[in-house]
Amino acid sequence: MKKHNFSPGPCILPQPVFEKASQAVLDFEGSGLSILEMSHRSKEFVAVMENARSLALEHLGLRNKGYTALFLQGGASTQFLMVAYNLLESKAAYLNTGTWASKAIKEAKLFGELVEVASSKDANFNYIPKDYAIPSDVDYFHCTSNNTIFGTQMKKLPLTDVPVVCDMSSDIFSRQMNFSKYSLIYAGAQKNMGPAGATLVVVKDDILGKVSRVIPSMMDYKVHMGKDSMFNTPPAFAVYVSMLTLEWLKDQGGIDGMEKVNNTKAELLYNEIDRNPLFVGFAANEDRSPMNATFNLTDEGAKDHFDSMWKAANINGLNGHRSVGGYRASMYNALPLSSVQVLVDVMQEAERTA
Amino acid sequence: MKKHNFSPGPCILPQPVFEKASQAVLDFEGSGLSILEMSHRSKEFVAVMENARSLALEHLGLRNKGYTALFLQGGASTQFLMVAYNLLESKAAYLNTGTWASKAIKEAKLFGELVEVASSKDANFNYIPKDYAIPSDVDYFHCTSNNTIFGTQMKKLPLTDVPVVCDMSSDIFSRQMNFSKYSLIYAGAQKNMGPAGATLVVVKDDILGKVSRVIPSMMDYKVHMGKDSMFNTPPAFAVYVSMLTLEWLKDQGGIDGMEKVNNTKAELLYNEIDRNPLFVGFAANEDRSPMNATFNLTDEGAKDHFDSMWKAANINGLNGHRSVGGYRASMYNALPLSSVQVLVDVMQEAERTA
Repeated sequence: MKKHNFSPGPCILPQPVFEKASQAVLDFEGSGLSILEMSHRSKEFVAVMENARSLALEHLGLRNKGYTALFLQGGASTQFLMVAYNLLESKAAYLNTGTWASKAIKEAKLFGELVEVASSKDANFNYIPKDYAIPSDVDYFHCTSNNTIFGTQMKKLPLTDVPVVCDMSSDIFSRQMNFSKYSLIYAGAQKNMGPAGATLVVVKDDILGKVSRVIPSMMDYKVHMGKDSMFNTPPAFAVYVSMLTLEWLKDQGGIDGMEKVNNTKAELLYNEIDRNPLFVGFAANEDRSPMNATFNLTDEGAKDHFDSMWKAANINGLNGHRSVGGYRASMYNALPLSSVQVLVDVMQEAERTA
Repeated sequence: MKKHNFSPGPCILPQPVFEKASQAVLDFEGSGLSILEMSHRSKEFVAVMENARSLALEHLGLRNKGYTALFLQGGASTQFLMVAYNLLESKAAYLNTGTWASKAIKEAKLFGELVEVASSKDANFNYIPKDYAIPSDVDYFHCTSNNTIFGTQMKKLPLTDVPVVCDMSSDIFSRQMNFSKYSLIYAGAQKNMGPAGATLVVVKDDILGKVSRVIPSMMDYKVHMGKDSMFNTPPAFAVYVSMLTLEWLKDQGGIDGMEKVNNTKAELLYNEIDRNPLFVGFAANEDRSPMNATFNLTDEGAKDHFDSMWKAANINGLNGHRSVGGYRASMYNALPLSSVQVLVDVMQEAERTA
């Protein structure tokens, strides 16, 4: 029996994607070859890669606007490093909104001077700082659009003239944004886009080539761009499943259609968190993420009772991250509204039987 | 109809592995979750990762010998960089036996002085240099055990007291070697081990921590070791399929059993290349690789005829790399002897009908 999967990532993907991917592992579109044994230089796989790159730009509204989409390896953690390698000549500004933002800062410090424009560390990252100034003499400003662990989301991009780099790992393709305001967007695939093992990088071509250091080939965006994202063997299966997921997203009405569903799911759950005296939300109300809802019990004595109930309801992945505790319901694009309803029902039943 | 897949990589994997992997994409061992949507922190996936790491060491005979196995991302191309980041303090020696060795040299040069102890570039890398000296004052010696593009293989490790680092991407797990003579072995998964997207690194713990530079986290072997190869989200599916393939290898009698089959396949094909007047081998006889047999037509006029014949025989991936031309038959572990027989039959038929 299929679980209601609230896992924070790797996470649920659309069921039709699982089915197509499973079939392609046996035989890719009647080719007599598994997707796993196909040369990345075959015309079949080159078409997969091109389609995935093109769909990513299309969904973001960035086709023919001077951007290139790449599917790389190493996750956002490698992007912490590559961003600095490629863009940090002297000084950069970072907004610190959580564990991943802190890690991005740590890695970039090896390459130049860093200005932490603001941090919500004082309150265990339960809010997004808002009143801060971005120096005008920095090479770029870096932020994290959604903080998976803490359940917060940036609702607005601060005004700035410097290039903006954004880690959108946990909310890309989930909501409409003015993506053309960003010079570089990166995201590990394993939330709204595909399985672990691929990283999407969308980069505005004209921001590159401005640092004086020699960049190792695998760290150099221009090297990957020059080889159409196939400088070396790409993570072929992860790219293929990402392509399938981006095609599925199109069938859902793209980001616009998806955002409506995501808002409905988030409203349903947050309303219950606020209504139910057993629970209290962790993140500041105005910064709540529709992707990751973090909440705690008002009475820790109810823990065993509630835990046994959601497990019995076939729910998976609801435990909060160790740095927050409590619960985290991750409601990525592929999670159906019906799964959120199951969770809400369990929360109400827990209240009745507490 | 299943193809006879001679692709140089990504390449054929065992059929039972395709079947198990396909099933796990729908439902991992009755868990109600796809392998693609499981948290990498779940006990199920942690067991997969630990099993894969342990099997790799077991096959190489390196368990309990001070080595650690890691499954990383980025392919051998990222290892070119990581090796130098972690080990190159002042000077290193490299043997240049082909395209990939040349790329390894290029990347390492950014980190210190490089001594190219020998090169076969003068003869388009069709042989392995043998009479060369490795300086005793280098941090390490780097070599490539098998050259996929040129079809050559190192049969013997040169004598040296310095740590030996070896790129075994295209022949790991295919033949028995004295693996404990190596201080660091790395291999992209996509030949004998699994799909593209994972890289195996087997490192002797005591060679690390000796360089003075600060190493970015994702480039630091010690960081990955300290987190049991899960510093960040690993390429979960590629690790899982690698684990399945390493289990399958055990059923084949491990490396010893596999090597016998590989030698039989190679003998069958090389005998035909040498016997058949239509073909001539590319690599020097004593350096021929059992993994990748490179050969050319003696009469280019027969090209269309031969090409149409092997394609009609349902053979895939036989075209040589552009830097060598002609043909390359890659006979990795999972390629059955019967596929080699089909190719040999076609070569004989081409001779008869030329």
